[in-house]
Amino acid sequence: MSGATTLSIEALQSRVEAIFAKGGLNAIQAAALSRVIVAGERDACKSHGVYRIEGALRTVKAGKVKPDAVPQLVPQEASAIVRVNAMGGFANPAFELGLPHLVEKAKTHGIAAMAVNDCTHFSALWPEVEALTQNGLAGIVMCPSYATVAPAGGTKPLLGTNPFAFGWPRPGTNPYVFDFATSVAARGEIELYRRAGKPLPEGWAIDADGNPTTDPEAALAGAMLTFGGHKGSAIGTMIELLAGIMIGDLTSPEVLDFLGTTTLAPFHGELIIAFSPEAFSAGRKGDPFARAEVLFEAIVGQGARLPSQRRFAARGKSTSEGITLNEAEVAQLDRLLELGLDAIA
Amino acid sequence: MSGATTLSIEALQSRVEAIFAKGGLNAIQAAALSRVIVAGERDACKSHGVYRIEGALRTVKAGKVKPDAVPQLVPQEASAIVRVNAMGGFANPAFELGLPHLVEKAKTHGIAAMAVNDCTHFSALWPEVEALTQNGLAGIVMCPSYATVAPAGGTKPLLGTNPFAFGWPRPGTNPYVFDFATSVAARGEIELYRRAGKPLPEGWAIDADGNPTTDPEAALAGAMLTFGGHKGSAIGTMIELLAGIMIGDLTSPEVLDFLGTTTLAPFHGELIIAFSPEAFSAGRKGDPFARAEVLFEAIVGQGARLPSQRRFAARGKSTSEGITLNEAEVAQLDRLLELGLDAIA
Repeated sequence: MSGATTLSIEALQSRVEAIFAKGGLNAIQAAALSRVIVAGERDACKSHGVYRIEGALRTVKAGKVKPDAVPQLVPQEASAIVRVNAMGGFANPAFELGLPHLVEKAKTHGIAAMAVNDCTHFSALWPEVEALTQNGLAGIVMCPSYATVAPAGGTKPLLGTNPFAFGWPRPGTNPYVFDFATSVAARGEIELYRRAGKPLPEGWAIDADGNPTTDPEAALAGAMLTFGGHKGSAIGTMIELLAGIMIGDLTSPEVLDFLGTTTLAPFHGELIIAFSPEAFSAGRKGDPFARAEVLFEAIVGQGARLPSQRRFAARGKSTSEGITLNEAEVAQLDRLLELGLDAIA
Repeated sequence: MSGATTLSIEALQSRVEAIFAKGGLNAIQAAALSRVIVAGERDACKSHGVYRIEGALRTVKAGKVKPDAVPQLVPQEASAIVRVNAMGGFANPAFELGLPHLVEKAKTHGIAAMAVNDCTHFSALWPEVEALTQNGLAGIVMCPSYATVAPAGGTKPLLGTNPFAFGWPRPGTNPYVFDFATSVAARGEIELYRRAGKPLPEGWAIDADGNPTTDPEAALAGAMLTFGGHKGSAIGTMIELLAGIMIGDLTSPEVLDFLGTTTLAPFHGELIIAFSPEAFSAGRKGDPFARAEVLFEAIVGQGARLPSQRRFAARGKSTSEGITLNEAEVAQLDRLLELGLDAIA
């Protein structure tokens, strides 16, 4: 096969699943992982698309994730908590296992939360937020990462890039969704500046001595900074507390200790909070979904953009026209399918 | 009475309560309002201390808050939601009424939320977050405000300064607490620059045409910006959705329509989310409170600060030495006590 190739979403899903099967993943791991990777590629989120397959397989080869794990629901005494143990596998099948239980509890109790434990997490959070919105729920998702970010006023890596995501359902159209790192930039962006030999923007990073730097090498040896100064640092710390410590899982420094590297997907937990707008608005005037549209129109009406619109546009195009992979990507998929873990250096 | 005066916390509480009683507040409104104002003064948070009394009374005099309101618990079908209707009074007595129910529900269900509706809100959120931590719970509190902040990429005021607060209990010491506006700066700070005739820092505001400005006058006629660019804007929007629309209460533009001014305390709702770390960590290794201390030590150990430490230091001093008010503050309290609402221009 040579040149660019255009595949349907379903065809790409099959191909990625086959690669993961070849790499030793069981059917539920392979299917769930492929779904988030194909969703990334479909939405033109290249950093979370097929590019991620190799990293997932590298983590398998390093023995840091169990490719044959079967996630387990863990019964909880607290009635609005769903707990899923990923059993050392990837987070995605664990999320999928717990989702219907979380939805049911959120609808019953008005608010509910899911803790996913003992998982390897390498995907964006927006697929999970969107899964909640598809069930008519609003949601917040957060998780730690590896210690690569200094707290505001500090000098050393301690926090992770700790993503924070939120979704609100919009009947009849794509949901309101955002998903961002609580660091100013992702580590991969700094790596791109290094490769390009370009200085970083001010305020992204500090060097190993804790001094501000625009040198990408010095930044990678030092620490990234949080977005929004002390406010972003506070949110990053909240995520360590709620989505690491509170759910009985690793914090970002503990993740780094466990892995010893930032080149493998991180092992930790994840917290998902689900809200039923119907329950919260019960007995009050106005339909919350209709009122939210007024807010969105006011945002768009003054020339601002809602988050995720570029992703949704790409999704529309991929759905109607298929997903186009370039020659190098096709060759890499072929190679991974042929060699499995032997393709990983 | 002349010169500075030092009062015990209890004595200041009595004096502020007496002022609010003179201003027509009933006993529960006066007591709850005085508690948050005295807490602000005690913690050397002057912007939320006795300075706020006049604004509260101005809102009473304008007929925009009911001074004799009696908050009511509203039975909810969803079992993890507590709803309190402030009945047009201040938020604080409504919060106090709902708190024990929220605590009980969070302990039973693991997570629970309280919606406070139809309230006038003028205090910081940290007293509420701290009330949760005193009950062994972690918590998030958020609310809209008036439309004074432009969404990222926008040109006009739409969002409020929408505060976001979080707390984590620390047995034996002051909790981990943060409480910040999702705008870069508070409107009051811009007013201080205006009075001082100084230009604003870059990135704080836009003028009425949507262009960046460092002119305080132009900023007050235009809009403030969110902290952290599009990320802070996203969080501000989330707060409109969850703590305005979802709980069936006003959004920031609706608040401004209702009041017609930003000189009175805003009328809207408030969302409080409570988490039981004990429930969330049940069955997992490690004590969450002990593990959180390791994280805090790592933050402090690299020279970074935990939020709220200045407040806690001031609190310690106020508790042992009393609260000192300057001559102008004492004169103003005397005047308010003597004249009640007649003291308000």
